[in-house]
Order: sequence, then C-alpha cells, then structure tokens
Amino acid sequence: MKTETLEKLQAAIRDIEDFPKPGIVFKDITPLLLDPEVFKLAIDELIATLEGQKVDKIIGIDARGFIFGAVIAHQMGIGFVPVRKVGKLPHDTESVAYSLEYGEAEIQIHQDAISAGERVMIVDDLLATGGTAAAAIELVKRLGGELVAASFLIELDFLNGRELLGADVPVHSLLNY
Amino acid sequence: MKTETLEKLQAAIRDIEDFPKPGIVFKDITPLLLDPEVFKLAIDELIATLEGQKVDKIIGIDARGFIFGAVIAHQMGIGFVPVRKVGKLPHDTESVAYSLEYGEAEIQIHQDAISAGERVMIVDDLLATGGTAAAAIELVKRLGGELVAASFLIELDFLNGRELLGADVPVHSLLNY
Repeated sequence: MKTETLEKLQAAIRDIEDFPKPGIVFKDITPLLLDPEVFKLAIDELIATLEGQKVDKIIGIDARGFIFGAVIAHQMGIGFVPVRKVGKLPHDTESVAYSLEYGEAEIQIHQDAISAGERVMIVDDLLATGGTAAAAIELVKRLGGELVAASFLIELDFLNGRELLGADVPVHSLLNY
Repeated sequence: MKTETLEKLQAAIRDIEDFPKPGIVFKDITPLLLDPEVFKLAIDELIATLEGQKVDKIIGIDARGFIFGAVIAHQMGIGFVPVRKVGKLPHDTESVAYSLEYGEAEIQIHQDAISAGERVMIVDDLLATGGTAAAAIELVKRLGGELVAASFLIELDFLNGRELLGADVPVHSLLNY
C-alpha cells in the first residue's frame, strides 16, 4: 500500500475512549464511511489483498462486515454471503458457537451459500480476539469452501486474534494497532 | 422497471414459511445476494428511484440495509451513514425509540453524520410495519437533513408501513407483496 493511502485510511479512523466500556479504546470507522474517496481506497486495498487470485464468493460478517463485504462482492461481480448471529438466517443453516469474554456466541451461514470447492474471501472491519472470524472460517470449511483470504480493515495486534485463525488461512489487515 | 428486470428480482426472493414464527412468510433475500447480476440490477433500480435527484448521503439501516446502502453510496461516490440499534454507535448519538409488536426498540445515528440541509436517501431491504423506517426518518429530520427518498427492495403492502412514513417523504419499493 502507498504511504499516502495508508495515511488517508489512518486519518479516517477515530479513537473513542472508554467504549463500549471503561479502559477500551474503540476504533470508530464511521468517518471513513462518510468520506467516499477514503471508503473507495479501503475497498480497493481489501480487494488487493487477494493479489489477483480468483474468488467465487465474498463472506461478510454481521453487521459491519456487510458494509465492506457487499461492496467488494458488487465491485468484483461475485456473490455475497452474509454470516449472521444466530436466529437471523431463515433457511437451513450451519452453526458454530464460540467463546466471548463473558459467555458464548453463535454464528450461522446458509447451507446453500457455498458449494464444495468454491474459493471464498472473508471480510470484516475488525480483527480483535479472532473468535468470530475463526467461527466464520469453520463455517466455510464445513461447507467445503476453500479460504483464499480473511481480510480486515483493522487488526488489533495486541489481542493476537490472528493466531486463532489457523496457519492455513492467509490473513490480511490494512491497519494495525 | 422493465418486466424482465422485475421478474429476475422476484425470482431471486425466496419465501420461507413460518419464519421467524408460525404463520409468517419471510422474504429471504440471500438468493439475490448470491447472484451478482441480479444484485447489480437491484442496486441500479434502487438508485433509479432517485430519478436523477442529487443526494449527499445514503443511510443504511442495521443490518441488511447496510448491504444495499453501502453499495449504493460506493457506486454513487457519496458518504454512507449507518443507523444502528442502540449501543452500537460509539460517538455522540441522536436516538429515537419506537414500538414493536411486543415492547420497544431504539435506533441511533451519529450526530455528526448529517449536516443541516444535506439531501439524504434512506435504504433498507424491507418495508414492513414501518416502525424502523419512520424512526430513521425522524433521526434524519432531527439533524436537519432533507429526505429525498426512502427506498426499499421489498414492501409488504398489507402491513401499511408506508402510511407511517409521512406524506412529505417519497417512498419507493421495487417489489410489492
């Protein structure tokens, strides 16, 4: 990525202290979404993490991953697949539960969303502890999909989420904190 | 809209009986998202509801509205603004509570997302009872935005949601059931 692009992306992320709770610095991406030039740069750089590899489907993770995933799928002219919190997808689903700091969460994918052998990119705005992304990877694998990339706008390096995603999945992030 | 386009959009919506509860027929949009040609048609037809009018911002409603709203904003080269369920937006917010069948819900917008006088389009996949869309319209008005259009992929006519949105807001839907 060009230095100029990196600086524009960085400048469009806003730190919010003590959100959602005291001691946490939240990375607010809404200024980036408000600026069409920077939003476009982010989309193009996320696509560039594929390094020209062919993909069949883009997976976006509920809910901010929908914003980036849907735009990437539309721009590339390929299908978009939402991975959603439990109870939101109406047809036959595959489910994976995973641990949160307190308690458990569960995400789902439609069973007919990916066919065996299809090449898949997972997109989300943030790689933090990696729990949700690891669960999304497991969903894709259960349906026989091949993970070409898991790409994130932001990675919080100090949370080591990348380690949870498995050595066989290429993980990319545009901004590291 | 051309008859051929209408038929392609209709064919990409799947009826799911008894979801989320017995007696409800859910309109599943995921087949449309999987088909890049039809997804592109839907985006172009939603943009066409503007009839060439200038807009400054696209508002997408959490969470499926993000899919359509973000793509429209990206394609038009204008800012995207998420309207979210309470507690999700980290900066200073404006909030509107509204009634659901059982209980209440509340949605929020960032106060700095829209400036007074800006021309705004609201996008969501579904107009049902209209509660969420009416609340989103109220949020835009509180920030001084001008509603150019509220456009939906699907409208469930029998729920009369359109009546809740106010006579001063142009409401459009591509598919009516």
